[in-house]
Amino acid sequence: MIAGQGKFISLEGGEGAGKSTLLAGLRDYLEQHDIALVQTREPGGTGVGEAVRAIVLDPAQHGLAAETELLLMFASRAQLVREVIAPALRAGQWVLCDRYTDASYAYQGGGRGQPLERIAELERWACDGLKPDLTLLLDLPVATGRARAAGRGEADRIETEADAFFERVRATYRERAAAEPERFRVIDASQSPAAVLQAATRALATLVAEVRP
Amino acid sequence: MIAGQGKFISLEGGEGAGKSTLLAGLRDYLEQHDIALVQTREPGGTGVGEAVRAIVLDPAQHGLAAETELLLMFASRAQLVREVIAPALRAGQWVLCDRYTDASYAYQGGGRGQPLERIAELERWACDGLKPDLTLLLDLPVATGRARAAGRGEADRIETEADAFFERVRATYRERAAAEPERFRVIDASQSPAAVLQAATRALATLVAEVRP
Repeated sequence: MIAGQGKFISLEGGEGAGKSTLLAGLRDYLEQHDIALVQTREPGGTGVGEAVRAIVLDPAQHGLAAETELLLMFASRAQLVREVIAPALRAGQWVLCDRYTDASYAYQGGGRGQPLERIAELERWACDGLKPDLTLLLDLPVATGRARAAGRGEADRIETEADAFFERVRATYRERAAAEPERFRVIDASQSPAAVLQAATRALATLVAEVRP
Repeated sequence: MIAGQGKFISLEGGEGAGKSTLLAGLRDYLEQHDIALVQTREPGGTGVGEAVRAIVLDPAQHGLAAETELLLMFASRAQLVREVIAPALRAGQWVLCDRYTDASYAYQGGGRGQPLERIAELERWACDGLKPDLTLLLDLPVATGRARAAGRGEADRIETEADAFFERVRATYRERAAAEPERFRVIDASQSPAAVLQAATRALATLVAEVRP
């Protein structure tokens, strides 16, 4: 932690975990504490990132190779780190990111079987070694999340995957959280939105106390 | 060389080297020898590849990080190998590709300073180890090539780079050709189009003789 530097918080979770609702609540919470915030998302957040997002979520791209998907995700991330996240942190702003590198371990690693050491190697140079100060993992049984997400209209390319895919995604997320307990906070996302927000703000309170003692 | 497998030929060279003219001549030459040919290009050649091409050549993307560019190029290539090149070769067709991995060593490595071992690592898994049987390098002094390319209308994002960038690109191409003399054939692209085509077809004749003895 560099003095005067902002905090980097990532939000992770499967389909229907309630990330969007929680993001809105966290934004309000941080504003109440007078913390300058940049909210962004992956893939996306930059011109090239949003172009990548359009490709990887397009149901017509059913032939997209796992290697292509992995490289596109890191292309989006490399640009986001350099164009948005790192400059904001240097300026003392906080960054709230809807998914980050853990999502590549979960989806492209666990889900699609890309070797985890390959992802770690990309993380080293594509993200310039930048890791979140705190990662909130919204954890939820796959069936519950899918039932929630089903009400949202047409599924994107990744949402059309089988349950087994999402079970692997969830398992990988949980393994990562277990391996890095200081960085991760696992939140039971089957709770009410208010309870999820409360758990999340409790986790943030420690970081907030560092800058607003 | 697997029996019944097609040949993979890549064409490399800087701006204004005459690749397009040569490609047309080579297509005719191979057709005369009754060789089924797939012609493609990089970045591009697939739906996702053409989307990547639009991003990396767009002059508005002046803030594109070198890491992002490298990852996008390999995303396009990973898809091209799996969707176009490898299936064509397995079906006994020949593949003529306007740029391939050597271009990443030259442009993203030599030009933009991305470490060559990083590119080699991506090459191993993103391209499934697939290398051309023959690479034709159209070599030309930078000033000559740029003077030729200048007549073509608006420059794309890469064409707007400084001469020093293209000198590094050229030097890296030549180093790669010197390191792999069996795979490369360096052609003096300051010659007439007819002389360039003659040099290229001489290089191809050996491969053609293997399948049309």
